[in-house]
Amino acid sequence: MTNINEAVKASKSASRKISLVGSSAKNRFLENLERLLDKNREKILHENSIDIENNRKRLSGAKIDRLMINDERISKIIESVNMIRKIEDPVGRISSGKKLPNGLLLLKKQVPIGLIMIIYESRPNVTIDAAVLCLKAGNGVILKGGKESINTNRILSGLLKEALRIAGIDENAVYFVDTTDRKATASLLEMDDLIDLVIPRGGGSLIKYVSENSKIPVIKHDKGLCHIYVDNQASLSMARKIVYNAKVERPGVCNAVETLLVNSDIAENFLPEMARELISADVTLLGCEKTAQIIDVEPADENDWRTEYLDLTLSIKIVDSADEAIDHINRYGSHHSDAIITDNFSNAMKFTDETDSAAVYVNASTRFTDGGQFGMGAEIGISTNRLHARGPMGIEELTIYKYIIIGNGQIRD
Amino acid sequence: MTNINEAVKASKSASRKISLVGSSAKNRFLENLERLLDKNREKILHENSIDIENNRKRLSGAKIDRLMINDERISKIIESVNMIRKIEDPVGRISSGKKLPNGLLLLKKQVPIGLIMIIYESRPNVTIDAAVLCLKAGNGVILKGGKESINTNRILSGLLKEALRIAGIDENAVYFVDTTDRKATASLLEMDDLIDLVIPRGGGSLIKYVSENSKIPVIKHDKGLCHIYVDNQASLSMARKIVYNAKVERPGVCNAVETLLVNSDIAENFLPEMARELISADVTLLGCEKTAQIIDVEPADENDWRTEYLDLTLSIKIVDSADEAIDHINRYGSHHSDAIITDNFSNAMKFTDETDSAAVYVNASTRFTDGGQFGMGAEIGISTNRLHARGPMGIEELTIYKYIIIGNGQIRD
Repeated sequence: MTNINEAVKASKSASRKISLVGSSAKNRFLENLERLLDKNREKILHENSIDIENNRKRLSGAKIDRLMINDERISKIIESVNMIRKIEDPVGRISSGKKLPNGLLLLKKQVPIGLIMIIYESRPNVTIDAAVLCLKAGNGVILKGGKESINTNRILSGLLKEALRIAGIDENAVYFVDTTDRKATASLLEMDDLIDLVIPRGGGSLIKYVSENSKIPVIKHDKGLCHIYVDNQASLSMARKIVYNAKVERPGVCNAVETLLVNSDIAENFLPEMARELISADVTLLGCEKTAQIIDVEPADENDWRTEYLDLTLSIKIVDSADEAIDHINRYGSHHSDAIITDNFSNAMKFTDETDSAAVYVNASTRFTDGGQFGMGAEIGISTNRLHARGPMGIEELTIYKYIIIGNGQIRD
Repeated sequence: MTNINEAVKASKSASRKISLVGSSAKNRFLENLERLLDKNREKILHENSIDIENNRKRLSGAKIDRLMINDERISKIIESVNMIRKIEDPVGRISSGKKLPNGLLLLKKQVPIGLIMIIYESRPNVTIDAAVLCLKAGNGVILKGGKESINTNRILSGLLKEALRIAGIDENAVYFVDTTDRKATASLLEMDDLIDLVIPRGGGSLIKYVSENSKIPVIKHDKGLCHIYVDNQASLSMARKIVYNAKVERPGVCNAVETLLVNSDIAENFLPEMARELISADVTLLGCEKTAQIIDVEPADENDWRTEYLDLTLSIKIVDSADEAIDHINRYGSHHSDAIITDNFSNAMKFTDETDSAAVYVNASTRFTDGGQFGMGAEIGISTNRLHARGPMGIEELTIYKYIIIGNGQIRD
C-alpha cells in the first residue's frame, strides 16, 4: 500500500493549498468541469457501458439502473455542478467576533475541514456531486467508489483533475482510489494522521464496516427508517395525502416512510380508505394484529419494525397514544425523519421535543429531508450522526472553524 | 460486563429524560450540589487521603499534587459549579428559522448530544467539572476516572447523584464506572448503540488507545504542543514578555509554549536577553545548531520538536521566514495554539491563514486558549479535533441541533 500512502500524502498537501484558494478560482474550476463533462459525453457513456456490460449478469435491474448513466443523467450532473457553483462559499466567513475584557480581539473563522474521504456504492453521479461539494468548501477529497462503476468513476475523476489543473489548482486535491482491492479501504481507514473525515454513503454493512474499522472520525449516512404517526386528532384526509406521498412518490430513497403508526381511536375510520389508496398504487401492506382486524394485511413482526424496505412496502402498527408512537420511533427508527399528523397542539409539541430524529415533522411529508429542499443548494448526504452535522449536510457542514486572536502584547496573569 | 451494560442502558434512558428537563430544575440540581460539596468537605478529604495513601509510593510528587484535594480546592470546585449554574442554557434555543417557498416552517433547534462518556486521568476535580457541564447541557454522563482517584471519584459522583435526586432528576443521568478493571473501558467503547460521544482527556497513550478502540465518535483532547514564532519585524521587548509568560507562568498546562521559533535576521539581537530571562526563571533551553552559535543551549533533535515538555523546558529553532515557521508548526505541532509576534501585516495575515491550529494568535500569549478566557464560562477541555468543536469546548459545544419542520399538509411533487 506504499503508493496509496504516497498518493494520500500528496492529497493532504494539495488540501492545504486548496484551503487557501479563493472562490473565484474554485468557481473557475467548476466552470471548466461543466464544459469538460459536456464535451466528453461520448467517452463517459462508453466507459459506463463497459461497467454495465461487466455487471449485467451479477446485478438486478434496479442496481443496473443505479449504475447507468445516459445523456440526460449527464445533463443533470452538469446542472448540479452549476448549482454548486452558485452557492455562497462559506470559507473565510467570520461567524462571530468580540473584544475580550483585556483588549484581545477574538474571531471565529470558518475554514475547510481538510482531507475528506467519501466511500460510496454504485451510483457514479456521487463521484462528481461529492467531490465538487468538498472542493468548493476548500477540502481535498478521496473518492472510493463501488467496484461496479470503476470505469465510469475513473473517467469522471480524470475530468475533475483536468478541470482543477486548468484552473491552476493542484489536481491532487482529488485522489481517485483506482483499485477494487478491498485492502485499500482498510489501509485508508488507518490513516488518521492524513485523512480528517470519512463519509460512508451506502447500505448498512458498508456503514457498519467503516464505523468499526476507522481510526478517522466518521459521519455516518445511515439508512432512513422513517415513520409517520397519525394522531387521534388528525385531519384524516391530510394524513392520507401525506402518507401516500411519503410512501409512493419515490419509495427507493432514505426519506420515504417505512412504518405507519396509527392511533387506535381513529384506526377504523382511517385505515380502510388509506389501504385502498396504497393498494391501488401497488403498495404491499404488512401490519400488527390489531391492524389485521381492520384491513387485509400480511402479518408484520419485530423484524419489520427494523426494516428499511426502500420499496413499495409499508408496515402498519396501531398504537394507543402519542407516547407509544414516540417510544416506538426512538426504539426502532434510524433517527432520520419522522412525522406526526395532528391538530392537537400538546401532542405536536411533545412529538417534536421527544422524537430523537434529525428532522421531526408536523403535518408534512418526510420526503422534504433533503439539502435542496432545506435551501442548502446541494447536499453531500443526510447525516445520521449526533455530532458536527445532523440531517442534510451541505457545503456549510463541510467546514469547521478556527479561532484567531489578535492582540498588542497581552500576557496572562 | 452484563451489569455495566445494564447501567449504561439506565443512563441512556435517564439521558432522554434530562434532555427534556428545563433550566430551573437543572440549576436547582447545581445549587444542591454546591451545598452538598460544602457539607461533605470532611468526608471528601477523608476519601481523598485514602487515594493519596494508596498511591504515595507509586507516584511522583507532581502526580500526587494533581490527585490531591484540600479545603481550598473544594472551594474552587464549588465556585466552578456556581459559575456553570450562571451560564445560559443553550438547550431549546432556535438558532435559525425560515419559511420555505412551499410554506413549511423550518426551525433549527439546539438539543443535547445524548449520553457522553468522559475518560480522564487522576485529577478528581474533573469528576465534578465535566459531569456538571454535560448535565447542564441536558446530557447523561458516564465518568471513567483514573484508578488512582477511585475513592475520591466515588464520593464525588455519589454527591452528584444525590443532588440530582433532590432536584427530582433521574440520578442515572450520572453513571460512575466504579471499577479499576481496564476491560470495563474496552467494553464501554464498544457500546455505540447507547453512548453518543467519548471525550478522552489525558496523556497521549490514553488518547491513542481510545481513538483506536472506540466504535463511538471521539472528540480528542490531545496534547498542546504550542509554538511562538518571533518574526524579523517583531517588537523584541513584546516578544520577550510574551514568550516568558507563555513558558513560565504555568508550564504544566496544554496552552504553554514548548517550541520557540526565531527569525534568523533578529536572532542575535533577540536571543541573548531572552535566554537570560528564561534561565533566571530556571528554564532549561535546548536549541538547533544555529541557536547554539548564539546562546548556550543543549542540542535539540527531531524528537524535541515533537515533545510537549509540560515543564520548565523550551526548545528553540532559528528559521529564515514566516513560511518556514508555518511549515514547522503544521508539521510538528498538535494544532492547538500557536502565535506569531510581528509588526508586519502580510506575515500576520499569512500566519493566521496558513497555520492549521484551533487558536492562532498575533502578538499575544498562547496561554489565553481557555474556555473561561474566551468567555464560555467554563470548558470541558480543549478539542484538537477538526470536527464538531475545535479549541475550548464549552456548554454550547456539548449540544447539537435537530430540525423541526411545521406544515399544514405539504407533500413533495
